[in-house]
Amino acid sequence: MSKGLPKRSEDYSLWYNELVKKADLAENSAVRGCMVIKPYGFSIWEKMQAELDRMFKETGHTNAYFPLFIPKSYLSKEASHVEGFAKECAVVTHYRLKNSEDGSGVIVDPEAKLEEELIVRPTSETVIWSTYKNWIQSYRDLPLLVNQWANVVRWEMRTRLFLRTAEFLWQEGHTAHATAEEAMDETVQMMNVYAEFAEKFMALPVVKGVKTESERFAGANETYCIEAMMQDGKALQAGTSHFLGQNFAKAFDVKFATKEGGLDHVWGTSWGVSTRLMGALIMAHSDDNGLVLPPKLAPFQVVIVPIYRGEEELALVSEKAKELMNDLRKVGVTVKFDDRDTHKPGWKFAEYELKGVPVRIAIGPRDLKNNTVEIARRDTLTKEQFDLTSMPISQKIAELLETIQTDIYQKAYDFREEKTTRVDSWEEFEEVLDDKGGFLSAHWDGTAETEEKIKEQTKATIRCIPIEREEEEGKCVFSGKPSKGRVLFAKAY
Amino acid sequence: MSKGLPKRSEDYSLWYNELVKKADLAENSAVRGCMVIKPYGFSIWEKMQAELDRMFKETGHTNAYFPLFIPKSYLSKEASHVEGFAKECAVVTHYRLKNSEDGSGVIVDPEAKLEEELIVRPTSETVIWSTYKNWIQSYRDLPLLVNQWANVVRWEMRTRLFLRTAEFLWQEGHTAHATAEEAMDETVQMMNVYAEFAEKFMALPVVKGVKTESERFAGANETYCIEAMMQDGKALQAGTSHFLGQNFAKAFDVKFATKEGGLDHVWGTSWGVSTRLMGALIMAHSDDNGLVLPPKLAPFQVVIVPIYRGEEELALVSEKAKELMNDLRKVGVTVKFDDRDTHKPGWKFAEYELKGVPVRIAIGPRDLKNNTVEIARRDTLTKEQFDLTSMPISQKIAELLETIQTDIYQKAYDFREEKTTRVDSWEEFEEVLDDKGGFLSAHWDGTAETEEKIKEQTKATIRCIPIEREEEEGKCVFSGKPSKGRVLFAKAY
Repeated sequence: MSKGLPKRSEDYSLWYNELVKKADLAENSAVRGCMVIKPYGFSIWEKMQAELDRMFKETGHTNAYFPLFIPKSYLSKEASHVEGFAKECAVVTHYRLKNSEDGSGVIVDPEAKLEEELIVRPTSETVIWSTYKNWIQSYRDLPLLVNQWANVVRWEMRTRLFLRTAEFLWQEGHTAHATAEEAMDETVQMMNVYAEFAEKFMALPVVKGVKTESERFAGANETYCIEAMMQDGKALQAGTSHFLGQNFAKAFDVKFATKEGGLDHVWGTSWGVSTRLMGALIMAHSDDNGLVLPPKLAPFQVVIVPIYRGEEELALVSEKAKELMNDLRKVGVTVKFDDRDTHKPGWKFAEYELKGVPVRIAIGPRDLKNNTVEIARRDTLTKEQFDLTSMPISQKIAELLETIQTDIYQKAYDFREEKTTRVDSWEEFEEVLDDKGGFLSAHWDGTAETEEKIKEQTKATIRCIPIEREEEEGKCVFSGKPSKGRVLFAKAY
Repeated sequence: MSKGLPKRSEDYSLWYNELVKKADLAENSAVRGCMVIKPYGFSIWEKMQAELDRMFKETGHTNAYFPLFIPKSYLSKEASHVEGFAKECAVVTHYRLKNSEDGSGVIVDPEAKLEEELIVRPTSETVIWSTYKNWIQSYRDLPLLVNQWANVVRWEMRTRLFLRTAEFLWQEGHTAHATAEEAMDETVQMMNVYAEFAEKFMALPVVKGVKTESERFAGANETYCIEAMMQDGKALQAGTSHFLGQNFAKAFDVKFATKEGGLDHVWGTSWGVSTRLMGALIMAHSDDNGLVLPPKLAPFQVVIVPIYRGEEELALVSEKAKELMNDLRKVGVTVKFDDRDTHKPGWKFAEYELKGVPVRIAIGPRDLKNNTVEIARRDTLTKEQFDLTSMPISQKIAELLETIQTDIYQKAYDFREEKTTRVDSWEEFEEVLDDKGGFLSAHWDGTAETEEKIKEQTKATIRCIPIEREEEEGKCVFSGKPSKGRVLFAKAY
């Protein structure tokens, strides 16, 4: 049963949109481009947050909170930053409403105009560096390793749930260092943290790399990223970590007394991941039956569905179900027991497939007699009769969840490898991009001009210059000019 | 050493402001009324959040996320709601900036005017109930028990760190029910959850009660609250829980098919606590030396300070300190070992007193010889030599932290009791309010008129009609008219 989901193979985009809504992950709100993250979707995001937050703290960061609003003049202090963000920001101009004179409703009170307009933060470098000016005087105040979990707003014209929304939730790390080297180490460290999170928790293989100049964050000297492949062969940028050089320190005059007795501008980084990761998670693993969630991020990992006729059978089956539930909870497995009498088992099976619950256990009267249960895997849609006397259920399920986590990753990894093609001529480039899609590993001459032309002709962009690329002499696939190594091209979200 | 903190007894207000800044809790930002919550302050807030979130989940609630922006027309749909919030809201009117023609900076692009202005949420009833309309069709969809952690904005003219800021962080629960009784039970349950949190974790005794009509939430039929007393005798409303009746369901046309086959409007509640609790926590317990934190909310509960001369002594003392630290961490006590050589022990003692770390352990060479440590309590500023052979340090400290938690609560409780006075005449009312302050338990005739007059004359307001008040025939302290029981008056934050 597919719960009326469109087929992924027929219309990937429609499949995604419907899946997000039908699996109770998110929906559009009355405000253009702003989404409502529904409880089931939010509980996945909470799990992501918890793991990331733990990883940030383990690498020495602490959380803080900075204002939602940025004075308009602040945004302009870093030249390329304002270029990047001014075109799509929400502007607060007034601070009061009043009753209209004709009594028909409320209007903006023209007398309550702000002296300086406020921008709803699209990212917080400016407001944070203006604060850091007061926090940093000496090398003893460094490094400053701060993160914040926050909402940000970018007035995107074309939005899609999770992937591109006017308001989204994210974390933004903002660090300050005494040396360029230290700041660069931090930048790379956080890219690695993101990659580890994507691979271990989201079961999402990623390519670590550096952005080309034209794809860089507005205000950064260098942008590191992790790039993932979705099931339609398109790339999705899943996280970025920016080496800001001294740009924001100079824009906000943040200097420190060095150990050697000098005075220098501070070196900065910023890094972030957002609710966009939800989009990546959904698109990377799910199928025509619905979501496929890696066990480590599933709101509950196991659902137990009782099969019964009449009160008496329900009582017996429930007793067994609760016993199993207790065994599973003792080893940290999260379980839901769905004994609602308002829905049939078949309906429930389809519902939990749609919602991507990794393991389903069904227990009926025959199981009670035979001391068995039926265990179904969401990722493979396979079932088995499990003999409860063969090993403890807790061990069985714990192992199965590990296997599922690994298998989902491996499947995504194999898919990506299969969809990554080394191309060595422009003809091949165009052909592979059209027929097969995916990542194209190709030589590039290093110029923004070539990059732009390729984008114009094919819509493919350079996703990154992979960190782990081989040195290889070659010729640019487009211009024929010399190149020192391959970069990854793809169409992207 | 007081780190230059003003005396609490001399200027309570200045003492509070300076304490918030000097203890690294929060500071004002460049945006009027918006604060920066600094890492140390934020880590206390995180602990509050974690406990509250656990309590909400234990009572069946799940988290979700709703948009930051509210269409102006939504705010107006509930008549008293718009009255309450229109006068102090941030209004987004445009969605783009552009370069000014004279090249001097960026200006608001007049062509990017929104068709309908958006309000930055001051609270989310309207946007949530407009969403609930799509989520609720039948009694099977009820109850709907949702919470969100979010930032909200109310354009207050006079702001104070944590207590009253234009932007603040909070949680807002929004629930929907099939019957008035169920919604009322939820309202009372959440007031009780807040009271339990305040008393068990914040060590803050509170009075549970109901607000008078004039102090009610704009859009509620009834507002329950918890009221705490600060050390200057003023009251602070620490949390509210609103019974919304069918007001928002009617405003947003949210109906459900009843079990009996009818169609009815849904009953609602909303409830919230905010970063204002940080203000309450600070003002309830702290002293001239700085913060006093209850162990359950302290970012770290114990600090170990080494006393040494030279590298060799430091090495020996450090070894012992690390051994103790491991013992403490094993039983879940959070510990910091401050072996910085940039600051003297005396400086560190004052620093951790300022920051309210509940227990300080000092270890020097003599301690090593005698197998002792010095244990200092922040709340009482008392010290003892502790014989490490007398009982395990983990047991000693775990017990001490429990004692401190209880003692801080008891001290605040005794203070409040001492500062709560039953008054039976207007003369007495004015005299006690002026001389002693605190809570005045007095008869009131139940009219808004009397309430207003008392407020005008004395600045005291009715904090609440306590839930646990005795039935007592009496005469209104102001008007002399009959009254059925006492209410609590106080000057309030």
